[in-house]
Amino acid sequence: MLIVMKPSATASEIDAVVTVVEAVGFRAHPMPGATRTAIGITGNAGPIDGRRFENLAGVAEAIRVTKPYKLITLDLRPEKTIVQIDGATIGGSQLAIIAGPCAIESREQAFAVAEAVKLSGARFFRGCVWKPRTSPYTFQGLGEKAWEIMTAIRNEFGLKIVTEAVEESHVDLIEKYGDVIQIGARNMQNFSLLKRAGRSKLPVLLKRGMAATLEEWLLAAEYIMAEGNYNVILCERGVRTFAQHTRNTLDLASVPAIRRISHLPVIVDPSHGTGTAYMVTPLARAGIAVGADGLMIEVHNQPELALSDSAQALTLSQYAQLIEEVHAIHQLTGSEKKNT
Amino acid sequence: MLIVMKPSATASEIDAVVTVVEAVGFRAHPMPGATRTAIGITGNAGPIDGRRFENLAGVAEAIRVTKPYKLITLDLRPEKTIVQIDGATIGGSQLAIIAGPCAIESREQAFAVAEAVKLSGARFFRGCVWKPRTSPYTFQGLGEKAWEIMTAIRNEFGLKIVTEAVEESHVDLIEKYGDVIQIGARNMQNFSLLKRAGRSKLPVLLKRGMAATLEEWLLAAEYIMAEGNYNVILCERGVRTFAQHTRNTLDLASVPAIRRISHLPVIVDPSHGTGTAYMVTPLARAGIAVGADGLMIEVHNQPELALSDSAQALTLSQYAQLIEEVHAIHQLTGSEKKNT
Amino acid sequence: MLIVMKPSATASEIDAVVTVVEAVGFRAHPMPGATRTAIGITGNAGPIDGRRFENLAGVAEAIRVTKPYKLITLDLRPEKTIVQIDGATIGGSQLAIIAGPCAIESREQAFAVAEAVKLSGARFFRGCVWKPRTSPYTFQGLGEKAWEIMTAIRNEFGLKIVTEAVEESHVDLIEKYGDVIQIGARNMQNFSLLKRAGRSKLPVLLKRGMAATLEEWLLAAEYIMAEGNYNVILCERGVRTFAQHTRNTLDLASVPAIRRISHLPVIVDPSHGTGTAYMVTPLARAGIAVGADGLMIEVHNQPELALSDSAQALTLSQYAQLIEEVHAIHQLTGSEKKNT
Amino acid sequence: MLIVMKPSATASEIDAVVTVVEAVGFRAHPMPGATRTAIGITGNAGPIDGRRFENLAGVAEAIRVTKPYKLITLDLRPEKTIVQIDGATIGGSQLAIIAGPCAIESREQAFAVAEAVKLSGARFFRGCVWKPRTSPYTFQGLGEKAWEIMTAIRNEFGLKIVTEAVEESHVDLIEKYGDVIQIGARNMQNFSLLKRAGRSKLPVLLKRGMAATLEEWLLAAEYIMAEGNYNVILCERGVRTFAQHTRNTLDLASVPAIRRISHLPVIVDPSHGTGTAYMVTPLARAGIAVGADGLMIEVHNQPELALSDSAQALTLSQYAQLIEEVHAIHQLTGSEKKNT
Repeated sequence: MLIVMKPSATASEIDAVVTVVEAVGFRAHPMPGATRTAIGITGNAGPIDGRRFENLAGVAEAIRVTKPYKLITLDLRPEKTIVQIDGATIGGSQLAIIAGPCAIESREQAFAVAEAVKLSGARFFRGCVWKPRTSPYTFQGLGEKAWEIMTAIRNEFGLKIVTEAVEESHVDLIEKYGDVIQIGARNMQNFSLLKRAGRSKLPVLLKRGMAATLEEWLLAAEYIMAEGNYNVILCERGVRTFAQHTRNTLDLASVPAIRRISHLPVIVDPSHGTGTAYMVTPLARAGIAVGADGLMIEVHNQPELALSDSAQALTLSQYAQLIEEVHAIHQLTGSEKKNT
Repeated sequence: MLIVMKPSATASEIDAVVTVVEAVGFRAHPMPGATRTAIGITGNAGPIDGRRFENLAGVAEAIRVTKPYKLITLDLRPEKTIVQIDGATIGGSQLAIIAGPCAIESREQAFAVAEAVKLSGARFFRGCVWKPRTSPYTFQGLGEKAWEIMTAIRNEFGLKIVTEAVEESHVDLIEKYGDVIQIGARNMQNFSLLKRAGRSKLPVLLKRGMAATLEEWLLAAEYIMAEGNYNVILCERGVRTFAQHTRNTLDLASVPAIRRISHLPVIVDPSHGTGTAYMVTPLARAGIAVGADGLMIEVHNQPELALSDSAQALTLSQYAQLIEEVHAIHQLTGSEKKNT
Repeated sequence: MLIVMKPSATASEIDAVVTVVEAVGFRAHPMPGATRTAIGITGNAGPIDGRRFENLAGVAEAIRVTKPYKLITLDLRPEKTIVQIDGATIGGSQLAIIAGPCAIESREQAFAVAEAVKLSGARFFRGCVWKPRTSPYTFQGLGEKAWEIMTAIRNEFGLKIVTEAVEESHVDLIEKYGDVIQIGARNMQNFSLLKRAGRSKLPVLLKRGMAATLEEWLLAAEYIMAEGNYNVILCERGVRTFAQHTRNTLDLASVPAIRRISHLPVIVDPSHGTGTAYMVTPLARAGIAVGADGLMIEVHNQPELALSDSAQALTLSQYAQLIEEVHAIHQLTGSEKKNT
Repeated sequence: MLIVMKPSATASEIDAVVTVVEAVGFRAHPMPGATRTAIGITGNAGPIDGRRFENLAGVAEAIRVTKPYKLITLDLRPEKTIVQIDGATIGGSQLAIIAGPCAIESREQAFAVAEAVKLSGARFFRGCVWKPRTSPYTFQGLGEKAWEIMTAIRNEFGLKIVTEAVEESHVDLIEKYGDVIQIGARNMQNFSLLKRAGRSKLPVLLKRGMAATLEEWLLAAEYIMAEGNYNVILCERGVRTFAQHTRNTLDLASVPAIRRISHLPVIVDPSHGTGTAYMVTPLARAGIAVGADGLMIEVHNQPELALSDSAQALTLSQYAQLIEEVHAIHQLTGSEKKNT
């Protein structure tokens, strides 16, 4: 924490700030400059909301210095986390592909897609059981009936099941029938849900919130880890901006930004990140080229009939082509990625 | 829904689109123009995700026409909703003031503030019992212990209690001890929580999400109303933008925008909407001048010692001054407001 | 400038940073903390782009402390600037109203509007002579022919003429025929144009850029003032956000934010700030309630036939009603405004 | 244009809208739906600002259908534009690399960088002669003295010179001494400058504005082309969002979005697009993987001493490594790119 005094601040105003800082248990380091004095604060265990000092006389601004996270940092754990799920990995040298339909609609649909996912070499199958929808009047997912289909896919194809928990009770069911708990963008700051996921033994795939800063996203991961679950995978899925040619603006710079401060693996979701089928493959290539550990892709056997997100689902053959292209790029960039 | 064909679209591509539209149960109205053909779609009961048509040959764009909400609209209910809580109202001719500390910290603190709130003529007392925090390492609220204090305030001052439900079980407790269920910005699309609030008999104060469009916010209200609870109060609390001089950018244009399409009352929260004490009073004045039905204000007996949001809390005397100023403006604008 | 070292930074990395800082002529103040060291930098005449230090070994972050502006600040000039134009003022105790059509279209149109503007007690008439348009295929303004009409209005009604300079040569013509040079949002960082306006004797009305931070906007004012022209009026006209219910999001918090650091007057443009006629009056009320020194309003005698911005123009009677409402609010808030 | 009537609109209100539409010279196509009527409008030569119809009785909304551009579209010219500059190309099968320092600072600096650029196989050398700066108190470029250095580089290395025109007179000098006119982000809607560039025989590199929608950016290109200059190269350089881990948010989805509607070549600038050296190479890889025709990269022989943008400049060896990586990706994606 650094408190910057106004140029007009008097010596007694500076002393008063020092007194308050010390009264609340910190050490103050006044540092006179050419035009104004700044006061450094040390001795704080965690982050201080120093904005309270901004209302004291003579104070121009309070600037936070210490970052508020601990467990996600490279300071704590310098080597990268590799999430292991029965031999399938996310964060290791292999590209992690999570693919499937937006929502489980029927056994035929799910099996047709799962077969293509298996064939592509992917290890993870996604599909919503409960579907959070902006409107209450649209398809909300098959709910528990979808679990039967999911279980059949898991047995038949050996794919790991990734599905979203929309409320705490869903985590119980995913623990029973699935392999990875997904926390969606709308729930990135649903702290009760984060804590519940943090008490699970399953890995958690944490999507970035629609308007989340990098810091808020990492603090959401910190919530999960603070409960003891260190298997967190971050997923960039685009943020809301003024741009209208895409549903969201995929912020690929978050990948190197995370690499620089955190040991957690990070994947990219170009399906939600663009919202439009024709953009998915180019942005998937870009996601791997930027250094992500994997991709989450929506595929459907009949996109034009999908009950949700039909505009962004790839056909089976578009998906197969995408996988081929991203593997070629990953072979090129896989080695240097570790060093960026 | 309107499908716009490319200028280069052939007659058979146009026919193919018409066929698909009719195959899924709608009526198609081709409308040839100077340079391109557009195809209107009617016969849909609810909104269609027409973006699926964008991948058909010859299609340039699909444009949604029907708005996706029903219950919140003036079409459904032309007169404004007035929420009644034992004689206290929100949405009527009286200005509704909801004031109190960010969080209940102690009996002394809560009573000192409640006394000032009562004295100001306000009818509603706010205060978090559970505090959703971005970081897991900061003060999380007193939890159920706070209820004892809240109940004492309710009995002693006759103020109505407004507090935030962070998870479904909280709604049970608010039903037992409180008067208005607040849904916070981070939970605006926590659909399980919205549905639970929709099954309550208490009014629901629904804050706008940090990056919510007007439509998404109104659809969240629609979720609550679709469960049978029509007593919804909207609360503008600022949105996330690139601007850095405030914590959020208060979007006061949402007030007339809501008035134009919805019968629901709308209030403004300049405390979270700015995040800085010196801005709260000017923006509170602006909120009433723009036509809001009320305000939510954070007040603290010792802001510099507050355990959360200290930078935005008003002192008791700043609060008293604010109330005086906004009442003067409300007297001027109260009458024409109904007609804007 | 404050350089924050990583927790893992070695003593020799810290020494190396100190050496570089001193080599480029500043003083370094190392300040060891519990987990990491920070190094304060003083002795800089102006702002340093300290981000260059971020690439040195062991450095976590460089944080700027000194604000980059001088002439706009209350530090330099504690009393508020009142711009004087032959007895008409902006920034004083009187509300400044600048009103007129988006563009001068004809003598009939301009005179009909000017008469209503005069009648309302406003002192300033606005109207584009050259119209910057997003599309090259739409009405671009009457150009120099409009000056004849403007001059007639100035003579007949005694109104001060405010018009936008789109290029440097326009400033010459405004100096000849007009009273206030407007710099539009799209040109807020057209530094050649800012410098030319800075060499003029006429006041400059500087609109905020569509995505300008407060700092960038104030630095644009600084460009004008650095050339010797201290008569700068700031104009908040909304910023671009994800919101779609308005053309721009009017950021009224910029008004108290400017008051806190600058002596320059600030007005609000609710016409461009909302883009829709039905929102203009509520937001005009809010602009005055928040403490602005005045308003810029678009009025048209026949809005439905306007050649540009027709959707946001008020009719003559809507305008007259608006003026009445904002004057009533200004009377209430005028006195305390000086102290916020 | 489509006018959507309110559900409550009467037959005579619908008739009145039809009458107005036809009175201004268009054809109206009423289209009754289940709950409301929509009225299609055809016969318009260019785009109509239909928002004027929104104020007529019974109208809910006016929706624009026709896109406002002509010359940039694939409708007009189905094959991709390849810009030719004496044998160097942008938009063809070869990757176009434009590299150099932010600004020309000295002969030694410029020559050291140019040598590395030449060695990398790049054909274009960039460097600002005039430097648009947010603050008036920072380095503004060497101005005309830099031309001597540029000319020497052009002669010695055979590199094509790309430099930014900040005002119209600069275009004259670039025509004399340079090869490509760059229009910067801050001037994307400086229409006078766009028109001047449109009258030049040199190609124009048009950067996307900081808050420009795709449509506004393409309309800026349309301004240049409408004057007769068809050699326009678009450059994605990031947009302003709430994110704080980068200087701008690089919006790579703009590349496939442009490909789908325009024949113009598009390149990516990861230096300004991220603002931080460690992110430039990953985002450069992503830019090529997404399908861009080339890159603009800032390189400096001593980044830590650069007079502007020091934080984002690559060292000469980082640059050489980047070029190697992007060529490898381009070889993979070059062929399919034409088909996305």
